[in-house]
Amino acid sequence: MKADDHEGCVLVAPQNFAMVENGIYRSSFPKPEHFGFLTALNLRSIIYLCPEPYPEESLKFYEANNIKLFQFAIESQKDPPTPIPEDTVLAALRVLVDVRNHPIVIHCKAGKHRTGCLVGCLRKVQNWRWSSVLEEYQKYAGLKCRQRDMKCIETFDTVSLRQCLLSIMYRYLGYGPNRKRLLYGEENVQTPKSQATKV
Amino acid sequence: MKADDHEGCVLVAPQNFAMVENGIYRSSFPKPEHFGFLTALNLRSIIYLCPEPYPEESLKFYEANNIKLFQFAIESQKDPPTPIPEDTVLAALRVLVDVRNHPIVIHCKAGKHRTGCLVGCLRKVQNWRWSSVLEEYQKYAGLKCRQRDMKCIETFDTVSLRQCLLSIMYRYLGYGPNRKRLLYGEENVQTPKSQATKV
Repeated sequence: MKADDHEGCVLVAPQNFAMVENGIYRSSFPKPEHFGFLTALNLRSIIYLCPEPYPEESLKFYEANNIKLFQFAIESQKDPPTPIPEDTVLAALRVLVDVRNHPIVIHCKAGKHRTGCLVGCLRKVQNWRWSSVLEEYQKYAGLKCRQRDMKCIETFDTVSLRQCLLSIMYRYLGYGPNRKRLLYGEENVQTPKSQATKV
Repeated sequence: MKADDHEGCVLVAPQNFAMVENGIYRSSFPKPEHFGFLTALNLRSIIYLCPEPYPEESLKFYEANNIKLFQFAIESQKDPPTPIPEDTVLAALRVLVDVRNHPIVIHCKAGKHRTGCLVGCLRKVQNWRWSSVLEEYQKYAGLKCRQRDMKCIETFDTVSLRQCLLSIMYRYLGYGPNRKRLLYGEENVQTPKSQATKV
């Protein structure tokens, strides 16, 4: 299904859809009925936060529309809950903040908890106060405010991501004769090895 | 209070804050504790949807940071509820969609109902399906989903706003020798007569 097929049609947003920042969106798992909506966003990438494989129909839609899929396998909450691995969160955030991947959608299954964690960590990097971070998390998580998510956001170390941001900026700016415009293909900080990069 | 005073400080978002579109935000009534946050948004304008006068302290902050205030007096819900005037909604939307006013924040008192109406009408113009418009409205309105708001969004005629958008585009593009870059001061579609323009 190509982008042109959706022009002029009524747009159906995935549940829990919202704009997070310029070029950054969040949602629940998009289904084929949402493809028109995704097309209107003119996406470059998707961050998918579950370990389950992606449906074939969606992969074909992404391929036809040149949308890269970055998969980061975070298990859903078990009983007892397993902590969310810090390095996986950081790896996902590195993809998220790289404007060469924008516009980008973050999603998990419901677009509540795993997605809420990633957005919460981003807000910490943006220097939001804890109460503001929490209010946003709760707006999407509803009644289900999970302790492992709170711990993930609270313990996230913003310094490592700030360093990553600086590294992208320096590469972009360059020095003296090496100064050039950054092209995605030339200077990938995050290179997807295949259509779906599983971390 | 100037922009520089807030650099590096912890950012406190107004309640019910969210990004609606590139350059468009929504929130509850911002208080002085949120000035740092507003500064970080690098705002050009505010749309205020209540009839009550604005606090002096906030007006001073806007003036110091060159933020224009557009006021559209929509009464809060009475018993029995008075309908939201269509022409006021349209006037506010004309300011909202004009990118020369961006970045812009829409707010009322709680950032729930009047703000939700304006965002809902914008989503209709963007061709969102009713269920998607409603889901977003409810995320901010919580349990209080008001009939007069539903009626306002349902009956809003998107054609009039689309015509306004086209008029801005044609002015921007120009024709033949009249073609020129659009400057805010030269070709205002919406000109604030004073710091606060009350409609």
